[in-house]
Amino acid sequence: MMEAAPPSRRRPPNAMQNWRLTLSYDGTDFAGWQVQPGLPTIQGELQQALGRITGESPLPQGSGRTDAGVHALAQVASFQLAAPIPPQNLERALNRTLPSAIRVLNVAHAGEDFHARHSARGKTYEYRIFTGALCSPFESRYCWPTFWTLNPEKMQQAAALVLGEHDFTSFAATDPDLTQRNLDEEECVQNPNRCINLSEWQQTEPDRLIYRVHGSGFLHHMVRNLVGTFIEVGRGYFEPESISQILAAKSRKAAGPTAPASGLFLKQVDYEDGVLPSATIC
Amino acid sequence: MMEAAPPSRRRPPNAMQNWRLTLSYDGTDFAGWQVQPGLPTIQGELQQALGRITGESPLPQGSGRTDAGVHALAQVASFQLAAPIPPQNLERALNRTLPSAIRVLNVAHAGEDFHARHSARGKTYEYRIFTGALCSPFESRYCWPTFWTLNPEKMQQAAALVLGEHDFTSFAATDPDLTQRNLDEEECVQNPNRCINLSEWQQTEPDRLIYRVHGSGFLHHMVRNLVGTFIEVGRGYFEPESISQILAAKSRKAAGPTAPASGLFLKQVDYEDGVLPSATIC
Repeated sequence: MMEAAPPSRRRPPNAMQNWRLTLSYDGTDFAGWQVQPGLPTIQGELQQALGRITGESPLPQGSGRTDAGVHALAQVASFQLAAPIPPQNLERALNRTLPSAIRVLNVAHAGEDFHARHSARGKTYEYRIFTGALCSPFESRYCWPTFWTLNPEKMQQAAALVLGEHDFTSFAATDPDLTQRNLDEEECVQNPNRCINLSEWQQTEPDRLIYRVHGSGFLHHMVRNLVGTFIEVGRGYFEPESISQILAAKSRKAAGPTAPASGLFLKQVDYEDGVLPSATIC
Repeated sequence: MMEAAPPSRRRPPNAMQNWRLTLSYDGTDFAGWQVQPGLPTIQGELQQALGRITGESPLPQGSGRTDAGVHALAQVASFQLAAPIPPQNLERALNRTLPSAIRVLNVAHAGEDFHARHSARGKTYEYRIFTGALCSPFESRYCWPTFWTLNPEKMQQAAALVLGEHDFTSFAATDPDLTQRNLDEEECVQNPNRCINLSEWQQTEPDRLIYRVHGSGFLHHMVRNLVGTFIEVGRGYFEPESISQILAAKSRKAAGPTAPASGLFLKQVDYEDGVLPSATIC
């Protein structure tokens, strides 16, 4: 973590300081990242907490919007404040003020040009599947409890076929509003191409499967639609090779269903200056 | 698990069958075990699920009432049904019908005399403390995140002093309504004596402490009041030996505060025929 010199030396009084914040959250009880009137959201809780602490209420910009029920091990947000508060004090105050479902892992001064979304170079997501007979009530918020017999080898073969650059239209949400949102969000108007450089299934325990994917960016619902489709492969409804045809179809109808939000974790956001701290889930 | 002979051989048609059910729950979003009008409760959810499945709505009797926010790894309930449904079918149907925060671990026919509360011989509780700097949002529902430097050796010395039979008035809830409830619940009117035969702290990881206690029965809030007092010992506010004085005082004011519900788990209920299945939390 690089901290700037004390504000009084670096900036004229009341000049705005740019901040970078890394946070983890259990998304179950929130209507997603993005602030919405009358609904609990991560962005809204963060804005309110900043307001209570500093008297200023900047709207923190996230590295991307997570949907309702989606979790984060290390989401990144940026915002500006005039108050000359030391980073450690702001971190402590935020963790005292925010609900325990949202934890701030790191708070740091950021360069003027840093923007959590525009500066992001890539992201890693994890998706957790529980395949046992009975999913513990202490785990069901953090996975997709499935009841099918799955073939992890075939799921891995399918996952490997999305590596590289592809048009991911078949795996993007089709809602017109959401499509607009995809494009806004990734700043790639009318370009549904994305580059994936990690896409793998891992059987971590006999009844648990984890999908890890890293890419330059993701369309809306893309990870959940990939997982929903890989599960269809694992069940035997699709052959692994059909992934290539699904990509080529450029139609949401060609792919499988959207996996539920509960299993999805934003694991890491990459920036030029390296990896930020991350929470873990056992 | 001993299952009775098929109902048709054993019982006349429409005679009531007694059932024993073992269940695990995340108590965070429930107003406790006991049914309350307009509030989500474990007993209420169970009664509704039985109603939807069988058309009958017996009120399941628990081994004891857990308070709002308290979890169970293996709570036991008993109830009677006229419907001749096979145990495995009832178990599957309950897990399909109940919210995912409540999972049925086992369903079995029970002898006519079995009653989840009256037949219980003892109980084990666990209480989980997190002592690190930052409690993950995926763990905070299932522990008490404390921020004090604690001395586990002194806490263990204090815990050992409640072993054996004692008058636990100092560790019982003082609310008159709750006191009445204690007495009702444990069927020991005006007897605040309880026998504790396991009471130990264990440091499972550098920043995690677990208290395990087994006894013939517990007064209302007794485990949480013991833990709140042991934490005061761990912080250095009380010496371990003061536990004996606190017991002798027979006054709630002599002991420490009530630890929060989030850390408490009903781990096991003992019956004459042995140990029932239990969920785990990692």
